[in-house]
This record gives sequence, C-alpha cells and structure tokens, in this order.
Amino acid sequence: MKKDKVITIVGLGVVGGSYAIALSKKGYTVYGVNRSSQSIDDAIACGAIKDGGNTPEKFFPLSDVIIIALYPNQIVNYLEQYGKYIKNGCLISDVAGIKSHFVDEINKLVPEGCEFLFCHPMAGREKRGFKYADDKVLQGANFLIVSTPNTTQSAIDRMSEIVTDIGFGRIRITDVATHDKVIAYTSQLPHAIAVALINSDDENSDTASYIGDSYRDLTRIANINEDLWSELFLGNKDNLISTITCFETQLAIIKQALIDNDAQTLKSAFIKSSDRRLALEKKKIDKK
Amino acid sequence: MKKDKVITIVGLGVVGGSYAIALSKKGYTVYGVNRSSQSIDDAIACGAIKDGGNTPEKFFPLSDVIIIALYPNQIVNYLEQYGKYIKNGCLISDVAGIKSHFVDEINKLVPEGCEFLFCHPMAGREKRGFKYADDKVLQGANFLIVSTPNTTQSAIDRMSEIVTDIGFGRIRITDVATHDKVIAYTSQLPHAIAVALINSDDENSDTASYIGDSYRDLTRIANINEDLWSELFLGNKDNLISTITCFETQLAIIKQALIDNDAQTLKSAFIKSSDRRLALEKKKIDKK
Repeated sequence: MKKDKVITIVGLGVVGGSYAIALSKKGYTVYGVNRSSQSIDDAIACGAIKDGGNTPEKFFPLSDVIIIALYPNQIVNYLEQYGKYIKNGCLISDVAGIKSHFVDEINKLVPEGCEFLFCHPMAGREKRGFKYADDKVLQGANFLIVSTPNTTQSAIDRMSEIVTDIGFGRIRITDVATHDKVIAYTSQLPHAIAVALINSDDENSDTASYIGDSYRDLTRIANINEDLWSELFLGNKDNLISTITCFETQLAIIKQALIDNDAQTLKSAFIKSSDRRLALEKKKIDKK
Repeated sequence: MKKDKVITIVGLGVVGGSYAIALSKKGYTVYGVNRSSQSIDDAIACGAIKDGGNTPEKFFPLSDVIIIALYPNQIVNYLEQYGKYIKNGCLISDVAGIKSHFVDEINKLVPEGCEFLFCHPMAGREKRGFKYADDKVLQGANFLIVSTPNTTQSAIDRMSEIVTDIGFGRIRITDVATHDKVIAYTSQLPHAIAVALINSDDENSDTASYIGDSYRDLTRIANINEDLWSELFLGNKDNLISTITCFETQLAIIKQALIDNDAQTLKSAFIKSSDRRLALEKKKIDKK
C-alpha cells in the first residue's frame, strides 16, 4: 500500500508527461496541470492522468505529492501564485537541471507543514511536448536529490520510494553547490560542445555522406530546446564557463601535439581517455 | 552469379573481421590473413573465413578481390612485400580513414593489370580485434570511394556491387582532398572532442552519478585505440588543426555569450544547431 497515492504533475511536457505515464502504470492516482488543454486531453486519452486542468486549484488540495515539471525560471512564480492551494503534509518537488539560482527563494515560499525536495531526474529527450513523453527514458536513469539545510530524511525517503517504483536507477543525494558544478560538466558542457560542433560545419560540404557513429552520437543533442537551455546555461553560467575553460585546455593539448607531430602526447591523451571511459563503464553508467 | 567470388581480407581486426563475416554470409569464398593465428582460428571456427594464414602467398593468387584492413601506415609496406603474389585483374582495396598521405605511393605499387580502389567504410567500433567483429556495424553505414586519376568506373562498379551486397547504405564517390578535409570534421574532430571532454573531468567528483544520455553519447568514443588514432590524427594533421580551430571559434561564441549574459546569442546558436541536426536527420543519417 503506497503512502503517497495522489500525485499532481504540473507541466505535461516530455519530462512531466513521462512521469505521469510511469506513475499511472504503477497505480498512482495522477492529475495533470498544463497551460495548453491539448496535452491534458492527450494525457487523459492515453491513461497517463486521471484528470487535469489548466490551473491547479482543484488538484493541489487532493495531492500527497506535487511535481512541478516547469522550466526552472517558472517555479518560483508558480509557487507564489498557487502555493496556497497545497494541502498540509504535501511533498513538493521539481525536475530542474540547475538549483543554486532558486533554492533560497523557493524554501521561503513553501507552505507551512509542507516540504520542497529539490530533484533532478537525469532523463529527458531533445523533443518537446507530451507527445514525446515516454516512461522508457526514466528506466535505469540516474536520479539526483539536492539537499538544503531544510531537507528532511522523511522527504528523501518518500521521494526515493516513488522514483524507485517508476524505474529510476541510482539515487544520489548531493548539495546545491556540488550539483550545479558537476552538472555543468556532465550536462551543459556536452550540449555546448554538440552545438559548437554542428555549427562549425562547412555548409558547402555534403556532410551527410561522411557521417559515422561518432558524428551521429556527438550531434544528437545539438537539436536543443533554445528556451530551456538558454535558461539552464545562464542560470549556471559561472560553473559552465569554468568547465568550458577546462575542456578548452584539454583540446588545446591535442591541437598542440598535432602541430608538434607529437605522437606520444596524443597516445597518452587517448590512453587516459580510454581508461576513464572504461572506469565509468565499470560503474554501469550505460543504461540497458 | 557473382563476378568476384573469391575475396581475401588482410587483417582480421574489427573492421576486416566484420567484412569477413558479412561476405561469408553472402556466399563469397573468403580467406583471411592475419599476423596472429588466434584470430584466424576463431574466424575459421565461426565460419567467417574458409581458410587463412599469417602471410598471403597462398591466398593472393586465388583472389578476385583483396581488402587490406590494416592500419593506414602498414599498407604501403604490405604491397611492397606481397604485391607480387596478386593475380592479374585483381581489385585491391583498403579501409583506411585517411588517404592523402599514401595515395601516390600506393598507386605506384599496384601490380600490372590490377587496380587499387581507395575505400573508407564509415563503420567500426572502439574495441579491437576479431572477437568484436560484427557484420551488424556495416548495415546501412555510409561507404566512401575515394577516386584518383587512376580510378576506373569498372573498379567502382565491382566494389559497389560487393558492398551493397553486404549491407552498406549510401555509397559516395569523392576525391582525396575533399575526403580528408570532410573526414577531419566528421570523424577525427569528434574523437578529439570526446577525448578532451572526458580528460577534463575533475576526478574528485563522483561523475558517474551525474551522467545522463548526453555525457554517455559524447564520451562513448573516448575509448579509443591509441595506435590507430594517433596515425589517423597525424596523417591528416593540417585538416584536423583547421577543423579544431573552427570548432573552438563556435565554442568561444557560446562562452562569450555566457560572460555577456546574452540569451539572444545563445538562442540563435541553439536554433542554428537544431535546424542543422534536423536537416541531417531528413537526409537519414541515423541508422535503423
């Protein structure tokens, strides 16, 4: 018997929608709140939510858990506007990819008797909207819980039970500063690289005929939601600038080795990168 | 009825081995030549080759087609040593990822009555050796034929028939200079980036817990064969240095936009990269 049975998802985009599908399959009662009615209709039609609306007044008072799957910059306003409808004891959470910029503000807005647990599911797709929601993307994915001085073990336990139930893999508890620093490296930097790689193409070339798996893999995420990712980049700009600089230094080592005809430095870089990638594989970072 | 029935593969590594498997499945008579006997035994045992040996004297005189799947820098020596055993009318080919550095030398070494057709199958795996050979990697992959003034239509037709037979997708004929320029961008640059990305990791971080699909995709090829790839990088160094510089410029645009808090420039870069990636997808670059 689940302790937290009724869950409202705010924002039926690709992440919120995937949560809704997964939660409904696992027997939770799921409500959906979304600005556009089309996604609500679609989500009801496919059984991802039991009911939904454009605003949450009807659903927040019923919810044991609320997951706000909006863009990072919309969450504070949302809580200001609708926090009063949240019932006592509710566990509120988010799915935002960066945390530092809003943690303090949000902690001040949490209604009495409730807790906001900052969460970052390491799952998503480059497409937008409920029609691309798919609970498969959650399976085995890393799940980060970002603790603040207000975070309680009880909230961590409640959320862990839910996300384990719907298929997430490793759950890791971290703090705000570490989260935003490491995520700049593992998430925002790869997106910056993919964008820069495809944008440096010579458009006069028939590039498509010269593509192997490497270029395919490295450019997949170059198809990027510009509104969300400009928020994520600018909301974490100091960390991202630092990590871009570290990357530039490593690339410069390779470039200089080419200029110098220095096979030994190239081989050392390749051996180091291979060892590191193999070490990550041993930690089972690859899903399936 | 196949015109070219008997094919010898020199080098039963991951690429040569994959060819052997695919060709045998399609009814060709395949011989394998390899320095280590273990791969020959394994290839015979699994039916990838009919017979094999450490040197080609016995097999070259029987072969309609010879595919030299060695490292780029070994091919010239190999032809010098064993070219005399190749029979009249034989079509000789390679699988090397760069061409400029050896095309002239090889064209001088081709035995009378034979032709060397420079080929680059855009397929491979980061692992080494016959045990990782798999004909699946060839399915739908791009196949590049690199023409020189010596190239005949007849050789192109013979090779196209074979590689279409074993499952390659788009076949593209290009020239040496274009090939090495574009391949620096689509193949060597992504490898340089993947290596630099994983080598810029802060080893004190528990990176594995913070990984999503983006980091997974961008570092897969960081597990790299250092001997082969240092050859490929240095054998194409001028093109690779140029393309690294173009990439650095695009990344610098993103970094500067972060420093300037310039959301508009970020969004423009993301829209451009998304458009380019979608345009590539329309050209069906993604296999399966």
